[in-house]
This record gives sequence, structure tokens and C-alpha cells, in this order.
Amino acid sequence: MIGLSGYAGVMESIMNPDPAEEQQPSSPLANSWSLKQESSKNPKPKCVGGFVLVHAGAGYHSESKAKEYKHVCKRACQRAVDRLKAGALAVEAVAAALVELEDSPFTNAGMGSNLNLSGEIECDASIMDGKSLHYGAVGAISGIKNPVLVANRLLIEAQKGKLSAGRIPPCFLVGRGAHDWAVGHGIPPCLSQKMATKFSLSAYKRNKRKMELAETMDTGHNPAKKRRQSSENDNGSGCLDTVGAIVVDLEGNVAAAVSSGGLAMKHPGRVGQAAHYGCGCWAENACNMNPYSTAVSTSGCGEHLIRTMLARECSAAVQSEDAHQALLEAMQNKFISSPFLASEDRVLGGVIVLRCCRCVEAPPSQNIQGILVEFLWSHTTESMCVGYMSTQDSKAKTHISRLPPGTVPGQCLAIEGGVCRLTSVVE
Amino acid sequence: MIGLSGYAGVMESIMNPDPAEEQQPSSPLANSWSLKQESSKNPKPKCVGGFVLVHAGAGYHSESKAKEYKHVCKRACQRAVDRLKAGALAVEAVAAALVELEDSPFTNAGMGSNLNLSGEIECDASIMDGKSLHYGAVGAISGIKNPVLVANRLLIEAQKGKLSAGRIPPCFLVGRGAHDWAVGHGIPPCLSQKMATKFSLSAYKRNKRKMELAETMDTGHNPAKKRRQSSENDNGSGCLDTVGAIVVDLEGNVAAAVSSGGLAMKHPGRVGQAAHYGCGCWAENACNMNPYSTAVSTSGCGEHLIRTMLARECSAAVQSEDAHQALLEAMQNKFISSPFLASEDRVLGGVIVLRCCRCVEAPPSQNIQGILVEFLWSHTTESMCVGYMSTQDSKAKTHISRLPPGTVPGQCLAIEGGVCRLTSVVE
Repeated sequence: MIGLSGYAGVMESIMNPDPAEEQQPSSPLANSWSLKQESSKNPKPKCVGGFVLVHAGAGYHSESKAKEYKHVCKRACQRAVDRLKAGALAVEAVAAALVELEDSPFTNAGMGSNLNLSGEIECDASIMDGKSLHYGAVGAISGIKNPVLVANRLLIEAQKGKLSAGRIPPCFLVGRGAHDWAVGHGIPPCLSQKMATKFSLSAYKRNKRKMELAETMDTGHNPAKKRRQSSENDNGSGCLDTVGAIVVDLEGNVAAAVSSGGLAMKHPGRVGQAAHYGCGCWAENACNMNPYSTAVSTSGCGEHLIRTMLARECSAAVQSEDAHQALLEAMQNKFISSPFLASEDRVLGGVIVLRCCRCVEAPPSQNIQGILVEFLWSHTTESMCVGYMSTQDSKAKTHISRLPPGTVPGQCLAIEGGVCRLTSVVE
Repeated sequence: MIGLSGYAGVMESIMNPDPAEEQQPSSPLANSWSLKQESSKNPKPKCVGGFVLVHAGAGYHSESKAKEYKHVCKRACQRAVDRLKAGALAVEAVAAALVELEDSPFTNAGMGSNLNLSGEIECDASIMDGKSLHYGAVGAISGIKNPVLVANRLLIEAQKGKLSAGRIPPCFLVGRGAHDWAVGHGIPPCLSQKMATKFSLSAYKRNKRKMELAETMDTGHNPAKKRRQSSENDNGSGCLDTVGAIVVDLEGNVAAAVSSGGLAMKHPGRVGQAAHYGCGCWAENACNMNPYSTAVSTSGCGEHLIRTMLARECSAAVQSEDAHQALLEAMQNKFISSPFLASEDRVLGGVIVLRCCRCVEAPPSQNIQGILVEFLWSHTTESMCVGYMSTQDSKAKTHISRLPPGTVPGQCLAIEGGVCRLTSVVE
């Protein structure tokens, strides 16, 4: 039997002083999920519930696009919550949220992904289950509508153990081989042309002209050198809108996933952080060594996120006492000022983070279990779009976090977050 | 002007009690490199020199193959030393060693790589420069004789900064896109048929028969389950012979590289640890936070090495005081007993590790610089073939390290190592 109560949306915004932000995250709320209501809906009540946090990318979100981004974040949260209410574990719920994010033509993942240099769509995606610590990833995969489902299927297949003749199942497949494996495992192929949208095609044409212009302007004795120096300030941060989600279920299991069409005009075969272990997503249940369950999903410039292993770094950081301070320091010291990115003028990325533990103050009696969920997001890009929801909420909250006016993307950061308490009555 | 002196090959073998090992690593040696000799060879003496440690895989090396493996390790060491003597930095020397290892038809890298399920060769390789902390990798690349050269070229190109229109250069390319990028950057293609050897083709036929037999035997009500359980004891550890190298130059720069044809009969598109950041190789010069420069290259079952991020874990571990003890504990706690591999019955892998610091006891006068190099290898596979050499040595030492008789591969480990002091006179 289940009851969810005490959702405390304590928000803080230490570097986003704009009071007129179009939709501030919620203040503490009282939307309680009654035991009776749940019981009448579900004749066989189980210990179900949880919390989801999604992002539709760290990059630049214009006011005109904001509505669409928020809308897809809402739908993604709802999908995850629906799965959690149906008794799904965190890893299933996170995959469901990702499918919704990939299906939106507005995000740079699945449908509507950025086109590469050859005008083709090649996607990266990965998923990690904090309970089993299994992981699945696909890189530079074409002709599959939902790359995250291939990553998830790799994870599921790997959990079954060895293949015939003692062969070890793969956790990471790329390119044509990944596509063929997916189709061989019942995931339907999708014509690549169907995945391009009017928006992604016009962006491709615009980018191609911009590249040609930049290269035409490079006349001189050392065109290669000039080419390198051109357009230093234009690093396409508008096109970094990778998507991701992190989930905790009421058993305290965490899961994380991420999916991306990659940088616009990337070289064919380029794989970004979304398919890189420890870089795109991370999920680890609490264990002897870690007091907290943690889940992280990243977005931004793939190469920056790879070389700093940002997902895993943030996961490790928030094991310390003050999660907010720890994430702030990790973003500052392990990302913006990372020695691995010393040569970069602007370090572009964003993260969403969950950390969870059993509530110590919650149980007034032995038969109430509680999970305290702290959720955070932080980014060095101009903006980041997030949404979040617990199984007790009637709808998701969404928010476009922005850097303070006048600050330089890639050199400073915004960080915000909240707290949610999940409780359940066990018989 | 340079002089190398005081090479101290202090070897220890804590879990390899076999006194009759065919070629024990050297005892302290006195092969000194005279200043005069160096000066007469090189009319313009520079501060050059260094040390290289290579591996030809952790897996199973039969007595019959041992000679060939040692021979290729020797040649690879010589290639790196030749480059170091010519004034190359560590990253150039490590690439040279890898080319030699890839070119051998006996190793599972480049020429003679394992064939995948479709009878094709797809290679993974990566390289990391501890000085710039740049990294390059290729995954599932076909039709290129030396995959490490593509990884190295990606590293070099990324160091040049942004591409036209502010695009960020890739650090990881896969499949057809990686092949086309390589050819576009002047690396010649090679017919895939030329990369297969009589040995790799006959291994493919043998493996295919074995798979068919295993699948034929799976008759019953639940063939899928049976298939999973079959041949649990046969995990092809004979075919894990990925290659790698780690180098320190006399300026104290470290570099690491790794290259692999991957598991035999892998699914097309499968990418292993050799193309995974933090898993296949790692190199990090000493800095404010790290007292030691460290370099690591791994070998073994790619999925095990990926999920434990073994290269980076070992690099971090040996920053503590006792490198030998730290590596032993890392291999035990972060690999064999890793919670990430809890469901695996046998955890198969090996590492080579360098850690270096300025000698404190060395300089009798202000104009002598010294670098203390500690080198180690450890493996859970039946055997691991290594070679090592400093620029003062006339030839490389090679060694096939084996688990103690009667122990179970994947459940216990061997660890050995030595110390080398590099000194140079600065004018």
C-alpha cells in the first residue's frame, strides 16, 4: 500500500537573480496523494512511486522556443510517472521519459536531430541502471527512431549473461552494426528522411552556408591556420540541446539516460558524450561505500563533457555532505577550470543531478518508509530547460534556467535545485 | 647534453612463484650510457631520453607463441626508444611503439586482428598525451592498417583548436566515418582482406564451428536460457591479446596508447575498452593536484575494463605513496571485486602502469635532473606479455607473466614491477 506525502519544493537560485523568470520552480506544495484514491484505482496496491527530473538540453533557448521545450519536458515527466505508478522500476521509467524527449521534433535527439556534415542523422544514446550497475550505449546510429531503446535493449541483454560459446554480450555498439543489432532484436528501422524535420533541414542549409562563407574568407598564405582562428566566438551553443532524464523509484533505485543528435555539422562517425560511459549519464544505488544513491545526466559540448567525465565526476562529488555546494565546486573545478580543458576559451555544458537517501526524520512508525530526494541542475550555457515531477503531482513543473544577464557562457554557471520527500506505507 | 645512468631493475613477483619462468625480468643492471658515446653519435646533444613499457595482451600465451610475442614487444620498445633518442616527446614515441605492435600478425590489433561475427576486421584504438591531456580514439574502424595513427591524428588535429565556423573538432570517430576522415587526412586505406592472416581466418572458422555447435546443442523448452548458460567456462581468454604502450620522456611527459581488434566473434559495431576514454589508456602529467605523472594501458575483456574504467582507476590509485600496494588494492577492489562486475564469474584483464617523479635523492649538483620511474604490470588473465626498455639500454627486456599454477583466472591476480632512474645533465 502506498501513500506519498510531503513534497517540499525548496528552490534556490544562487546565480539566477531574475525575479521575472517566466515560470519559477514551485514553492513548497501540498498536492497530496491519498491512500484511498490510490487503493481504489489499483485493487492490488504495491509499493510504487518515485520522482523524475528531465532536461531538454543545455544551450540557448529563445523565448519563442521556450514553450515547446517546456511542453515536451512536461510530457516526458508524465510518461515516467505513468510508468512508475504502474509499478515500473527507475530504469524502465527513465527510458519512457527519453522516448518522449526523442520523439519531439524540437529537441536534438531522435526525431529532428542535428544533421551531420553529409546531411545525415547519426544519434548517440546511453542508459545506466543504478541497481544492477549495467550500462548500454549506441553511437552514430542511423535509421532508428528511438536510439535510447537500443541502448536499453543492450543493457537488458547484457543482464541475461553470456551469449553462446561463452561470448560476452556487448555494452556499446556503433554505426551500421548497432542498427543491424537493433533490427535483429525487434526494434523497427525508420527511414532517415523521416527523422529530419523542416527545422533541422533549414538549420543544415544555414550552417552549410556559414561554413562555406567562413572557408571562403580564409584566403591567405596559411589558410589552415586562418581557418582555425575564424569564428572563435561562434561555437553553436544554440545547437547543444541533447536530452536526458534521471529517476528514483520508491525502492530507492536510481537510473539515468541521455540521447543526442550530436553537434550540428559534425563529421560522420563522430560520437559525443551521450554514448560515452561516465560522461553522458551515471546512476549508482547507495552501497557500502556510497551513502547516497545518485543519478546524473549531462548536456552540452560532447568533447568537453567527455574529457572531464562530467557525469561520473558530479555523481562522486554529491556523495559529500552538502550536495549543492559539492555540485557547485565540481562544476567550477572539474569543468570550467578543469586542467583537461585548459586550452578551451568557453566550456559549455549542463547537468541534472539526483541524490537520494532513506529519510531519517520521516518515519513516525516502523511501517513508513521514506526517501529524501535532492535534485539539482547546473549549466555554463546560456540556458537549460528542465522539468520535474513526483508520482504525487498532478502535473510536472518546468523551468528554463538562464545565466545572469551580462555573464559570459562557458565561464560562469547557474545552479538551482530542490528537495522532495517520498514516503510509502508498507504493510 | 645527456647522460642516463642508474637503471635499477628491481623486480618482484608476489604471486608468480615459478622460478623457472623462461625469462625472468632483469636484476639490477649496470648498462650505463656514457656521455661521450652519446655526444659522439649526436653532434648537437639535446635533453633526450626516456622509458617505454609495452604489452602484447593479457590473455593466454602458449609456450609456442611466447617467442613471437616477446619478439614483437622487443621491436616495439626499440621503435619507441629510437624516437625518444631522436628527440621525440612521449606521445610520439608511444605511437611508434603501437605501430610496431599493430603490424605484427601475431597480436590482436591492426594486422591479424580477430574477425567479427561477419568475418570482418573492425579495430579500436586510442591515445592520450599526459602533457596536453588531449585524447583521440577510433572505434570499429575497418580498412586502416594502423588504427592508432588515426587516433593520434585526431589528437593532433584537436590540439590545433576549432574548425571553420567555430565547430569543435572530434576526439572520437567510429566506423565508416572514421575511415573516411583518416583517408581525408592522408592516412592510406588498406584492403581489409590484407589485414586478415592465415591464423585469424582459421581461428574464425574454428570459432564459428564452436558457436554453431553450442547453438545446436541448445535444444529444449527454453533454448534462449540454455544458450545463455552454455560454455560458461569458455570465455575465449586466449583471444584477448590487445596491445598497448606507455612512455615517459626525459622532460617528464607521459603518454599512453592501446589498440585492439576486439573480442573474437563480436557483433559488428561493437566497441571495446581500447576506444573508451578512461578505460583503455590514461596519461596525466604531474600537476598541482597530482605529485606523480602516471600512464596506464589496459588489456583483457573490453566490457569488464569499460564498466570499471580500469585505466583511470589505476592511474588515480598510484598517486598514493606505495604504488605497488595501491595497484594491488585497485586490481583487487576496483576490478576483481568491483560492484560493477558483481554478476561476472571471472573478471579478465591486465594493466601496465608507469608513475614518475623528479628524483629527490639524485641530483648531486644543480645541473643534473633526474626522473624516478616506477613500472608495474598486473593481470587476472592466465598470462600477460610485457617488454620494457630505457634509452640507455642496448635492447629491451621481455617477460611473460603468468598466474601461479592452480589458481583460477579472473579470480586472482599477479603483480610485478621494477624501478628505473633516468638522469640528464643540463648545461
